[in-house]
Amino acid sequence: MPDAAVADARTYSPGLAGVLAGETDIALVDGELGRLLYRGYPIIQVVQHGTFSQVCELLWTGDWKPRIPQPPAPLTAPVEAALRQLPAGTNAMDALRTAVSVWGADGRLAWPPTVEQARAVTAFAPTALAAFARIRQGLDPIDPDPSIEGLAEAFLHQLTGTRPTAADARALDAYFMVAAEHGFNASTFAALVIIATHSDLASAICGAIGALKGPWHGGAPAEVIDQLHQMGSADKAEAWIRDKLDHHERLMGFGHRVYRAYDPRAAALRTVAEQMGTNAAWLDMAVQVEDIALRLLKEYHPERALQTNVEFYTAAVLQGVGLPPDLFPATFALARHAGWTAHCIEYLKTDKLIRPDVRYTGPQERDLPAV
Amino acid sequence: MPDAAVADARTYSPGLAGVLAGETDIALVDGELGRLLYRGYPIIQVVQHGTFSQVCELLWTGDWKPRIPQPPAPLTAPVEAALRQLPAGTNAMDALRTAVSVWGADGRLAWPPTVEQARAVTAFAPTALAAFARIRQGLDPIDPDPSIEGLAEAFLHQLTGTRPTAADARALDAYFMVAAEHGFNASTFAALVIIATHSDLASAICGAIGALKGPWHGGAPAEVIDQLHQMGSADKAEAWIRDKLDHHERLMGFGHRVYRAYDPRAAALRTVAEQMGTNAAWLDMAVQVEDIALRLLKEYHPERALQTNVEFYTAAVLQGVGLPPDLFPATFALARHAGWTAHCIEYLKTDKLIRPDVRYTGPQERDLPAV
Repeated sequence: MPDAAVADARTYSPGLAGVLAGETDIALVDGELGRLLYRGYPIIQVVQHGTFSQVCELLWTGDWKPRIPQPPAPLTAPVEAALRQLPAGTNAMDALRTAVSVWGADGRLAWPPTVEQARAVTAFAPTALAAFARIRQGLDPIDPDPSIEGLAEAFLHQLTGTRPTAADARALDAYFMVAAEHGFNASTFAALVIIATHSDLASAICGAIGALKGPWHGGAPAEVIDQLHQMGSADKAEAWIRDKLDHHERLMGFGHRVYRAYDPRAAALRTVAEQMGTNAAWLDMAVQVEDIALRLLKEYHPERALQTNVEFYTAAVLQGVGLPPDLFPATFALARHAGWTAHCIEYLKTDKLIRPDVRYTGPQERDLPAV
Repeated sequence: MPDAAVADARTYSPGLAGVLAGETDIALVDGELGRLLYRGYPIIQVVQHGTFSQVCELLWTGDWKPRIPQPPAPLTAPVEAALRQLPAGTNAMDALRTAVSVWGADGRLAWPPTVEQARAVTAFAPTALAAFARIRQGLDPIDPDPSIEGLAEAFLHQLTGTRPTAADARALDAYFMVAAEHGFNASTFAALVIIATHSDLASAICGAIGALKGPWHGGAPAEVIDQLHQMGSADKAEAWIRDKLDHHERLMGFGHRVYRAYDPRAAALRTVAEQMGTNAAWLDMAVQVEDIALRLLKEYHPERALQTNVEFYTAAVLQGVGLPPDLFPATFALARHAGWTAHCIEYLKTDKLIRPDVRYTGPQERDLPAV
């Protein structure tokens, strides 16, 4: 009998590492040169001169347009009811996944994915996450304020019931911009596998949120916060970091699997933060700790060239604007809605089921035993 | 400036067609010889001698064990509340995705995936789908009957409130067995991309349900039913099919992208159905229509060798046991929970983020325009 396993001598790359799975016009992630381009535009320029609403339109349509209002979508009764029923202590990613699943269950995101759908779900997610965060504290959700034109600012407003400072709104908007898109990461790829079956955008986003929930993808900015808390202040940073490195422990917020040079998102966030003028102690500390950490990493590991990654400044920004650490991954998801939906729309050009092969390594054909 | 797009000369296979993405001991899908083996055992033997509960344990643990009870899980209050809030006309796949998302939000399916978790979510899904089907009719969900030991029978009971006939229970159990697993299809692959980030099994299953929702994956057994209804009876089948083929229209239920020979799942379902003794008009008609269709397909398209696929007998079985066609894809999902969860557990051996590369084909680096 032919043996399918033996006959299949193709090489196999676990995790599809190094396997080309698609083509994209949306972003270039250039690890060697430390570049991140959105439709050709360097992330640092985008963040310095743009807004998250412009980034979304750029990723979805390809055009850099004047700023347009991007108000949050209202909460729906089924979503609010579902959020109110979630058990105490629910992971925020589970809540966001559930909210999008309920919200999309009325068919508003039916195949094929469109820019209008992308706008809608991206504007819904902050409302849902803010509602979850309030409900779990025993508070009622806040209705969107139509005078607020940006999703980052609106998210902070819907979390707290008060308008954030301009500096906080700008800082979170900058974070949303750098977190919006990053090529074929695992969550984007999950969304593509789902949308490629001609399923709907709600299903694709639910899958993407689920993938981003995993700590191997959604990252660990909360651990950076832990480190900063453990240090206490910048003048204690050197001793604290030396102790970590002496004990061969990992320093969170440094090193990246793709970026060999500096992570351009970290650079963009630091630049924006510095330009905002510093009334934020958390930012001062982050900048000082970064400088100390880079100096010590070079001293301890001159061969590794570890550089600051985006999680370091993500932690500083998200804590700085007052978010609790357990909302960090879901806040990342709010921003990444832009990229997920952009890739789903772009995939219409390819429009082919994503179905790789698998090599069978199990038992040869055999008869069922009597049991 | 180096050009990442030009530098990347690797070939690219849209949809990862022909790309080996993993290794598995769970099933062999052998299209050339028309074989489907679960852990080495031919599907026809499995279906003739086994039960869905045995298939689940086989896929999860690798062992063919004596039959064990597989009672459905009870509905939880948060899931029932979420289902009651879904808008009228909600797609059953959206409802099932939402139910699993809510049910898993309490962390019961936390990383890493286990056999116990697989048992739990596979036993929960039929309860959830049956509850949705009743709630949308204005009826209350039915509590699981602990004296029912199989999920297929329990699903029918929870749909209708009465125990199904032994023939119906056996027919649906056979369908659950053939639908349980089929290698690296799109929904299984979506589940793997999600679980590989160290996310949880609930997130992986939500993604898989979303992928299966797409008509390019979940299939179109309801269209086979439409055809059978349009024919009306077996004695009108020949004229009806000739008319279709004369007009170059596609006959649903025949031809498969993988199986060149007969689809072994269709063969297994037909055999079981015939052995049950026929008190089912729907089955008689399906068998007669199949024979006529195969004769005419050979006459019209001798070069194509189109054979019956699993959807043909899926339609016959699912209609035969009384399911409404709009529940067919979600019923497929109930069975496929076995395979999804088995692959997630097996992936622990590989335990590597699934993150393929993408070739950038967009604009070269450029400055942001003034707008």
